[in-house]
Amino acid sequence: MALIVQKYGGTSVANTERIMSVAERVVSTAKQGNQVVVVVSAMAGETDKLIKFAHEIMEMPDEREMDLLLSSGERVTSALMAIAVQKLGCKSMSFTGRQVGIITDSSHTKAMIEHIEAGRLRLALDEGKIPVVAGFQGIDEFSDVTTLGRGGSDTTAVAIAAALKADLCEIYTDVEGVYTTDPRIVKDARKLEKITYEEMLEMASLGAKVLHGRSVEFAKKYNVPLVVRSSFNDAPGTLVIKEDQYMEKIVVSGVAADKNQVRITIMGVPDNPGIAARIFNQIAGANIVVDMIVQNISSDTKATDMSFTVSRADSKKAFEIAKEVSDKLEAKGVNMNTDVAKVSIVGVGMVSHFGVAAKMFETLAREGINIMMISTSEIKVSCVIDAKYTELAVRVLHDVFNLANS
Amino acid sequence: MALIVQKYGGTSVANTERIMSVAERVVSTAKQGNQVVVVVSAMAGETDKLIKFAHEIMEMPDEREMDLLLSSGERVTSALMAIAVQKLGCKSMSFTGRQVGIITDSSHTKAMIEHIEAGRLRLALDEGKIPVVAGFQGIDEFSDVTTLGRGGSDTTAVAIAAALKADLCEIYTDVEGVYTTDPRIVKDARKLEKITYEEMLEMASLGAKVLHGRSVEFAKKYNVPLVVRSSFNDAPGTLVIKEDQYMEKIVVSGVAADKNQVRITIMGVPDNPGIAARIFNQIAGANIVVDMIVQNISSDTKATDMSFTVSRADSKKAFEIAKEVSDKLEAKGVNMNTDVAKVSIVGVGMVSHFGVAAKMFETLAREGINIMMISTSEIKVSCVIDAKYTELAVRVLHDVFNLANS
Repeated sequence: MALIVQKYGGTSVANTERIMSVAERVVSTAKQGNQVVVVVSAMAGETDKLIKFAHEIMEMPDEREMDLLLSSGERVTSALMAIAVQKLGCKSMSFTGRQVGIITDSSHTKAMIEHIEAGRLRLALDEGKIPVVAGFQGIDEFSDVTTLGRGGSDTTAVAIAAALKADLCEIYTDVEGVYTTDPRIVKDARKLEKITYEEMLEMASLGAKVLHGRSVEFAKKYNVPLVVRSSFNDAPGTLVIKEDQYMEKIVVSGVAADKNQVRITIMGVPDNPGIAARIFNQIAGANIVVDMIVQNISSDTKATDMSFTVSRADSKKAFEIAKEVSDKLEAKGVNMNTDVAKVSIVGVGMVSHFGVAAKMFETLAREGINIMMISTSEIKVSCVIDAKYTELAVRVLHDVFNLANS
Repeated sequence: MALIVQKYGGTSVANTERIMSVAERVVSTAKQGNQVVVVVSAMAGETDKLIKFAHEIMEMPDEREMDLLLSSGERVTSALMAIAVQKLGCKSMSFTGRQVGIITDSSHTKAMIEHIEAGRLRLALDEGKIPVVAGFQGIDEFSDVTTLGRGGSDTTAVAIAAALKADLCEIYTDVEGVYTTDPRIVKDARKLEKITYEEMLEMASLGAKVLHGRSVEFAKKYNVPLVVRSSFNDAPGTLVIKEDQYMEKIVVSGVAADKNQVRITIMGVPDNPGIAARIFNQIAGANIVVDMIVQNISSDTKATDMSFTVSRADSKKAFEIAKEVSDKLEAKGVNMNTDVAKVSIVGVGMVSHFGVAAKMFETLAREGINIMMISTSEIKVSCVIDAKYTELAVRVLHDVFNLANS
């Protein structure tokens, strides 16, 4: 008997018909002799509707209130799913983030899980129940509701799988797995059978929307085997595992694009030690994650331009902070470019192969695509480019690294 | 400085524009030097939408799950309202039923409040904040979410007013107050300036939808002055107060109609002592409130027909129980009539005036309306009639007791 955590995303539970169809899959997994814990997202469109309401009232609504607001969608789905599983004759029970004991810090709208008291969940499993957990949410030490950020239901699922030492965590979505790149952009994109946590981590953080980055980190840390698959059919999906279980040694596994980033530049910053720390401490203090940072030293003026990227959601806040810092430092001002995209190549083989980055830069240059920022890690190379070239860049990179046929 | 609890119903918060308009009223009340606590319902239509989802999945969904499901609507409004009050420059903070410390029993979908730990609410008021409480909900000893039944947000508001010893509890809705009868049925229905708790209690339980019965009971018990008024204009509303503060001595204050009831009859019940207790213990055990009970003794057969009414929501469950009981008692069977309505006249003056009930019966008879069941109290007389005569009955009763001109 295996213990399986199944997480179903918004499109998989978009209406009551879909919820019934998911319940059938859940019950069939249980009837094959497994213990099942279900984690659900909000019904597709619900979270966006709530965000729209809040923004109709106020441009930058309070984050504590946003968390209470947005946590309601997953609660609705968890109750409906528990009812659907009961309808099929199995015992079931919903759990909110609080009831499952997901304790987080107080960083509203992007809280970090501190620990999970899984006792009530274990009890339900021991009683032969199928627990249905509202994803995306927890509570902090003040008993206030927190949310884990967009895609947080993936994190909930993996964290629960880790806490329960589950045998497998299945992430059900509306695509059949992880592809070498976005199949909507490149027609011959190929579904990967396996991918390492590290590669998936880069793919996730780079905008391949199938799996939330933090959930992959969690899975890697606690060695939870993940499967990404479709709730709309029975195709086997993509297995996300440790590198040593991974046989193929492909240089580049995939190409990812992310249009959810905004570039902010503080111009004419006095080039003194400690300046970067001052800027990014302020931004981190507001719980904003900075992705890429590039500093262009200009030797003749003793001043520097400092560019960084943040997610679109954080851009207004980050821009305000950048302006304050710019004033304090007597810099020349701040500008924000929202028409940018980050295009990246990812692969565990990359670290041992020279020239991969150079090949990427050459390929982009050949197409006349200007590179604004570059960032590299052991298993990826990312370039910030003009947003209008995103699809072109993805196609030529997918082609030049021969991903359709690997 | 007065402490005022303001409760806003679903139509008052139906969209973000309405929420902003309510926030303006809240802030203006606060700026007049009052402390304000806001209690909100779900946005109009939301609760019905969620109930529809649940019923698409299952005819009789689990009540614990229904509570989690339905409690989400009020949480959404509380967060949006707190954001709206903040937008107007006041400090504000949302509270769920749990955060406000509303502890209930475990009768899911119709939980009773056991106590309120108002500490966190007082703290927020002391800090100069305007707390916005999600109505209709609490938690039980297992930390499970409970709801207080339809109209439960009224109860939340009055219970909080009682716990905080508020000076006034204002119930904002889409009508201007309590009328002598439903103005949609009788054109010259008149708005009452004042009404006693007792009269309001009867009116509420009889289907005058402006105020939930339990909230009036609470208000009466803790002597919380209530005002029912419209959030769409500045008309003064109806004050609900103690009888000794009530000067006018009108015999009949209002006519109410309730189509939300269903009559169930167990036929041919053996006429032995203790039978009624057996039947209604079973029904009470399922947390179903029985409204009227009528037993017709038939001397020749030593058997009796036992009729009772329950709310439409409870009818399926009550019918199942009645069938079980009928089998056990070897009665002749059970039938259910859903095409019934209860029409009632209400007034504190009634107890000292003879002939009020008789006048009601005569009036109905003159119109050819058959009375199926009768129930009386000190301040009301109710008749169950064929539903199709509801409006006719209300009109002729409003007329015969001269309510338009009292």
